[in-house]
Amino acid sequence: MSITNDLVRRYEAVCHYARRSAVLSSANEVLGWDERTQLPAGASEHRAEQSTLLAGLLHQRWADPTFAEHLDVLSEALKPNGHDSLTASKPVISEQRLEAAPKSGTTDSLDGAAAIVVRRLKRERDKKAKLPQTLVEELARTAALGEHAWQEAREKDDFPAFRPLLERMIGLKRQQAECLGYAECPYDALLDDFEPGELTRNVAAVLDTLREELVPLVARIRQSGRRADTSLLARPFPIETQDRFVREAAAAIGFDFNRGRLDETVHPFCTTLGPHDCRITTHYNEQHFSAAFFGVLHEAGHGLYEQGLPVRYYGLPLGEAVSLGIHESQSRLWENLVGRSRAFWNHFFPIAQKHFPAALGGVPLDEFYMAVNDVRPSLVRIEADEVTYNLHILIRFELERALLDDQLQVADLPAAWNEKYQRYLGVTPPDNRSGVLQDVHWSAGLIGYFPTYSLGNLYAAQFFAQAESDLGNLALSFGRGDFHPLLDWLRERIYRHGQRFTAAELVQEVTSRKLSARPLVEHLRAKMGSLYDL
Amino acid sequence: MSITNDLVRRYEAVCHYARRSAVLSSANEVLGWDERTQLPAGASEHRAEQSTLLAGLLHQRWADPTFAEHLDVLSEALKPNGHDSLTASKPVISEQRLEAAPKSGTTDSLDGAAAIVVRRLKRERDKKAKLPQTLVEELARTAALGEHAWQEAREKDDFPAFRPLLERMIGLKRQQAECLGYAECPYDALLDDFEPGELTRNVAAVLDTLREELVPLVARIRQSGRRADTSLLARPFPIETQDRFVREAAAAIGFDFNRGRLDETVHPFCTTLGPHDCRITTHYNEQHFSAAFFGVLHEAGHGLYEQGLPVRYYGLPLGEAVSLGIHESQSRLWENLVGRSRAFWNHFFPIAQKHFPAALGGVPLDEFYMAVNDVRPSLVRIEADEVTYNLHILIRFELERALLDDQLQVADLPAAWNEKYQRYLGVTPPDNRSGVLQDVHWSAGLIGYFPTYSLGNLYAAQFFAQAESDLGNLALSFGRGDFHPLLDWLRERIYRHGQRFTAAELVQEVTSRKLSARPLVEHLRAKMGSLYDL
Repeated sequence: MSITNDLVRRYEAVCHYARRSAVLSSANEVLGWDERTQLPAGASEHRAEQSTLLAGLLHQRWADPTFAEHLDVLSEALKPNGHDSLTASKPVISEQRLEAAPKSGTTDSLDGAAAIVVRRLKRERDKKAKLPQTLVEELARTAALGEHAWQEAREKDDFPAFRPLLERMIGLKRQQAECLGYAECPYDALLDDFEPGELTRNVAAVLDTLREELVPLVARIRQSGRRADTSLLARPFPIETQDRFVREAAAAIGFDFNRGRLDETVHPFCTTLGPHDCRITTHYNEQHFSAAFFGVLHEAGHGLYEQGLPVRYYGLPLGEAVSLGIHESQSRLWENLVGRSRAFWNHFFPIAQKHFPAALGGVPLDEFYMAVNDVRPSLVRIEADEVTYNLHILIRFELERALLDDQLQVADLPAAWNEKYQRYLGVTPPDNRSGVLQDVHWSAGLIGYFPTYSLGNLYAAQFFAQAESDLGNLALSFGRGDFHPLLDWLRERIYRHGQRFTAAELVQEVTSRKLSARPLVEHLRAKMGSLYDL
Repeated sequence: MSITNDLVRRYEAVCHYARRSAVLSSANEVLGWDERTQLPAGASEHRAEQSTLLAGLLHQRWADPTFAEHLDVLSEALKPNGHDSLTASKPVISEQRLEAAPKSGTTDSLDGAAAIVVRRLKRERDKKAKLPQTLVEELARTAALGEHAWQEAREKDDFPAFRPLLERMIGLKRQQAECLGYAECPYDALLDDFEPGELTRNVAAVLDTLREELVPLVARIRQSGRRADTSLLARPFPIETQDRFVREAAAAIGFDFNRGRLDETVHPFCTTLGPHDCRITTHYNEQHFSAAFFGVLHEAGHGLYEQGLPVRYYGLPLGEAVSLGIHESQSRLWENLVGRSRAFWNHFFPIAQKHFPAALGGVPLDEFYMAVNDVRPSLVRIEADEVTYNLHILIRFELERALLDDQLQVADLPAAWNEKYQRYLGVTPPDNRSGVLQDVHWSAGLIGYFPTYSLGNLYAAQFFAQAESDLGNLALSFGRGDFHPLLDWLRERIYRHGQRFTAAELVQEVTSRKLSARPLVEHLRAKMGSLYDL
């Protein structure tokens, strides 16, 4: 009994501590949001000082020895045949007792909630403890220098100037992987930061299938001879009206503006400043409709996930998103599977025509629908369509693995990049600026991040197929402007669980299948087949 | 030598520590600004948690024993005949050596900068140490309850419901004064929080003179029979145009939008988020011109002071404002002595007419000038004019001193309030809502704060008279839309010194005289004399 009391006390201390860290971290998110949306030109240096100070305080909190000790004792106790002094064959902490710790106004308790909280926190804490302070600092320093070098190199189209920094970064990432350890290959260790528990082998298998299916699909689309008239999206769309219309659409799919905001930035993002404060941003272009509209649906998709996480577990793993891939699945699902669907525009196109009579008044819905689904191999990832986007990701995934495994030298990277673009997409960058230098990620040490974009597309298609199998044809409700059946389903099956499951477990739990390329391939084949008469 | 080295090391540690505290505090200011301008409706509770956490971390920093020890040792060493082991008759810390600690890119060093930093920090630290934690918490708790009770009482016009809270608050403020100690009366201790080093006796003397002069002046204005046509300020003024025009005016007087912002809030304010990030806010009313326009000049005046503080001393007393009274002197100076001057409108009225042709096209400048300078006894402080405002403050100053000295009971406060309003302003509130319940200050424990508003008016007039004596008639430059001569003078004489001087010292330094009611009285007599044909 006293052992159990001690464990409950420790669990409560861990939860309290983790929540305080989350509150502090969320204060830093406020600084970040403000930096990107409000900061006066002269104030960046001081903002960096403020953020660095808060990040430092947070970093110290992970190294707290009492926190670590509580987590160690609790994880031992949670092992079925764990600690010597605990002979019970099941966990000695009653899950129900532990449930008491998080604030709860509901009877909807999760099985094993406490065990999950302890395991996830210990996993994160142990990972952080494995990295020597010197390596952490060197990575941060190289990332800062790297981003700067990348920016300059891109401006001047000068890859050789960037090469030494990237070589140093690759070296550091190898060291990081060695410190962290891995199941099968060093890339596993890096992937784990973004897709916890996922293995390179699994990701490679699904993405390989995707490549085998999409490369020929893209070729057939090119050969079809059909082309959308995308010029109709490049007419004047007054910015104030875009703003009004896209807020209407975001609210319609369920983004709660009482618990969030939409603002303007150069580079759109979604950030969470608290359990009831999720902020998305966009960038309006008077001469283009799609960028802001689908951009907002994308960020609002991230926002719906954040707004659907269980508030009572705020600051604990059960109140947080599973992984970047699962997060991206929600932005892609709402942007593409919902927002680029024919049914969505059955409802919204007449409204769009009222908002933009000059630009869209005389446009037939079919033409508009074709234009927002234009598939066209291109050089730049962030401008890519629903189909080719995945090939952009595949190229990066294959190249960064080769770099990490020393099968590709940084010096040979531009050639390897261009060769793959030609092979998968049939295009060759005229320069490195629109080629290998287009993304910031590698310069910032984000290796293992790219595949989460395509994982997002894959998860999205698999979840969506399951939703339609559970709920029937969703086009009917979309056509009425009703997105609640889908949103309720996602909240119930995905959002409310926080990190109860890993990404792989969640996909299995929700769809009764492992992650597979099939749903995405089927979706793209069907949609593009009908659009391009394949 | 080794003693001096030790002192330099301690001084550097103190500066570093104080700067870090300032950075942390400025992060909390970001949260505060965001709360009042951006926060989604649902997010207030979490924002309170974030702010409380940062405030707690800051509070802990003041209690740090190493910081206290450094300050103690340094202050001893700075005494001319101080510490036993230091026999020198002048400070053993070379001021020049200590100057090295603050980042400095300039040769413009202040004499005795280090001594001032140490003295001001020690003074603040010692004050904080004198207050028992229980009293601090009780004050915070009562303030929170008090503000809530005040809000309810005001809505229902129910003073008796507010009375117990106010009685408790008065009791706690007496305790606070006893803990802090005071020179002559308990009010001194409270006044010191807002006007450091100032004595009640001095403030009372100047405000008494002011009352003796202004009560008859107001009466003569009433009897003059002249009345401005204020309806011309209540015509439609499109909000977007107001925003454009007032930004033009704020930039013209010198507010630097590269180091600051202007946004909308319900209750306007000015806050500083960093050395290059000063943010002001306003509230636009389509049906009224004056509120936002003069409100922005007022907040921009605060902002000019903040933007003029020496950046190299950021986070140290030499980089901070002297007092609330001196701060208010700048908002009042720019709002009233500049913004409500005839010369200002000689330049800006034609521009205003272009911006608002419908509202102002046919209005003669004289009528407009009269309208923005309308003097009219009223019940509500925040709507009061340049003359009567001071009488509103006097009433509060007299009443709060009487409450603290136990010469007035809270139960008798409404009657005392109404009696003074009748005597000084010739008006009697029909209810407590527009009487004693109109201000939040007392409920929040802000006793000793009110006089700083009138001190601001007094300092402003005295500084302005000195500026005109130094620079010649400023109306000439204002009439050309040129505010730089005045701004440069203020920067040079006031802003760049931070807390080098106390408020009393600064007034003496800048005007070679003690604070006096005469400059303000003369300004108001002359201006109103000509406006009202007195």
